[in-house]
Amino acid sequence: MADSKKNVLIIGGGAVGAIAALNLEAGGLAKVTIVLRSNYNVVKEQGYHIESCDHGVLKGWRPSIVRNTVPNITEEGLQPYDYVILVTKNIPDVSPTALDLASPALPKNSRLTTLILYQNGLNIEKPFVRAHPDVPVLSGISMIGSDEPSPGHIMHGEGEKLKVGAFPASNINPAVPERRAQEFVEIYGKSGKADVTYSPNVLYDRWRKLVFNACLNPICAITGLDTGRIRLADGTIEGLVRPAMKEVVAAAKACAGVELGDEIVQTMIDADPLESYLKPSMQQDLEKGNFIEFENLVGEPLREGKDAGVPMPTLEVVYQLAKAIQWRIKEKRGLVDIPKKRSADAS
Amino acid sequence: MADSKKNVLIIGGGAVGAIAALNLEAGGLAKVTIVLRSNYNVVKEQGYHIESCDHGVLKGWRPSIVRNTVPNITEEGLQPYDYVILVTKNIPDVSPTALDLASPALPKNSRLTTLILYQNGLNIEKPFVRAHPDVPVLSGISMIGSDEPSPGHIMHGEGEKLKVGAFPASNINPAVPERRAQEFVEIYGKSGKADVTYSPNVLYDRWRKLVFNACLNPICAITGLDTGRIRLADGTIEGLVRPAMKEVVAAAKACAGVELGDEIVQTMIDADPLESYLKPSMQQDLEKGNFIEFENLVGEPLREGKDAGVPMPTLEVVYQLAKAIQWRIKEKRGLVDIPKKRSADAS
Repeated sequence: MADSKKNVLIIGGGAVGAIAALNLEAGGLAKVTIVLRSNYNVVKEQGYHIESCDHGVLKGWRPSIVRNTVPNITEEGLQPYDYVILVTKNIPDVSPTALDLASPALPKNSRLTTLILYQNGLNIEKPFVRAHPDVPVLSGISMIGSDEPSPGHIMHGEGEKLKVGAFPASNINPAVPERRAQEFVEIYGKSGKADVTYSPNVLYDRWRKLVFNACLNPICAITGLDTGRIRLADGTIEGLVRPAMKEVVAAAKACAGVELGDEIVQTMIDADPLESYLKPSMQQDLEKGNFIEFENLVGEPLREGKDAGVPMPTLEVVYQLAKAIQWRIKEKRGLVDIPKKRSADAS
Repeated sequence: MADSKKNVLIIGGGAVGAIAALNLEAGGLAKVTIVLRSNYNVVKEQGYHIESCDHGVLKGWRPSIVRNTVPNITEEGLQPYDYVILVTKNIPDVSPTALDLASPALPKNSRLTTLILYQNGLNIEKPFVRAHPDVPVLSGISMIGSDEPSPGHIMHGEGEKLKVGAFPASNINPAVPERRAQEFVEIYGKSGKADVTYSPNVLYDRWRKLVFNACLNPICAITGLDTGRIRLADGTIEGLVRPAMKEVVAAAKACAGVELGDEIVQTMIDADPLESYLKPSMQQDLEKGNFIEFENLVGEPLREGKDAGVPMPTLEVVYQLAKAIQWRIKEKRGLVDIPKKRSADAS
């Protein structure tokens, strides 16, 4: 029985990764190793305290193996994992990148391990496909309402929807990642708690989510208005959010032949309930002084759209502002040196 | 001798207004009444503490009359002032407006008083010309390095340059405001300390200053980067600041026939020394939780430019973001009511 379980490595065990670990082990078809950073000590000593709408309340729960480093399978002499799921933030403009982080856990010249990228945005698979051409890479798009108000304490308030499919960029026979995606859907769905489906069109799902993530997400971060307030502020939706979203819809069509339809814009504007005042991820990150995921969420769709000849004047400015804000965070975190201030007297 | 002095009312006695008051009284041709708000108690009791590159160190200095309300000349039975200088912030989207503030000090149906607007931006004279068609309105553009680190303590570190001219929008014979402007230049220049000149082309001066104020000023505010850092952040000048400035240069030409020349953009990018790390006014205001002057500095040049058919995609987004940020400040200050947060359980 134990032998038939799939070995799954989850890198990142915050609000999303913890629920993925819990759901996979609840299904009984996977043995999960989880890699933690900021909440490692708490979870190692006391386990997670999870309050989940799907799984109930669990105190002191731990995945099979809890680690604070990404396993180096070669150095540690480990068997390749069946699945490696990357659930960390993806900040390609700051080291270590997602690729740096996950690489030690991936086998060389082998298709034994399937990599699943849970992160948002466009072209996130490209660095992996280049560096690990034999590793099948899947796209996981998770829609989940889950928070970690304090380390190891997971509040999972809203049901999980997961779409898994093969990234088309892989240079492996497409049938391989497609089969792996279908297998993973089975493993993940076994618990009966999560709404997990196979996605035959990963690019559609990603561009669809970008209508929110390339527009409302950075605009909320830049203005400091959550998704409830931004709809109350006079003129911001019509003057800013809707034009940006229309640019992304046009880019999706021109770049990937993805027809999102006109109604997607209003759907994404109304994605969060008006009176819930939710902060999108970049706004939360900015308030915490964290780096923002603007390159994959804004930069890549912008570059793709412009390459395809789509005018994207709104997204261009949003991108440039996000980039300048990221530079500010880099300076605050000591990644950028600036010349010393010259006093007026000394000049 | 006392009778020959001009009666000057200065509304706003912070870093700029205090130096104007000092310079006017130093010349001996003006008797100044100053209206203070936040620093009123300190100045009333102890006077200003001024450290000025032009006027030296003065402790306990006061203008002739110090008040904490704008004089209502009708109710108080005062003679009309010769000059009323408005040096407050100009925030037309928040009450009281500059017009509300200054109106009680202006005579009805009389040209006796000349109004001088020291504020930046475009079309700031329009509300006054409509409400007080008989009052000649002048434009004062002040370039001064002066701060008020604590109430009543003025640090004037950089020489004052003042340009005064007639606003063209006045429905009075243009010779009248032009003569008043020249008279004021004489009164203000009498101290020999300030570099004050008559400007025959107020719109040229205003559009020129807008190349900085409509672009770098809000972009620094939005990104949180000062004018030194914004030049260090990779790509922000070329991707954002320069395109915005070029739009303003094009608008100046199309709207007012003002030819600023191509080199103005680089001049304004380099206006502050690189290693001085100065924060423009909107950035300072935002950090203090104050309202930002985005309507006259960004909104008006944008509207004028668009009316004249100039494409201004960069400034449009900068404007919309500034407007959303202003809404956030309004909410923080209790000027906006929003529906109560609905908890997830109650939905």
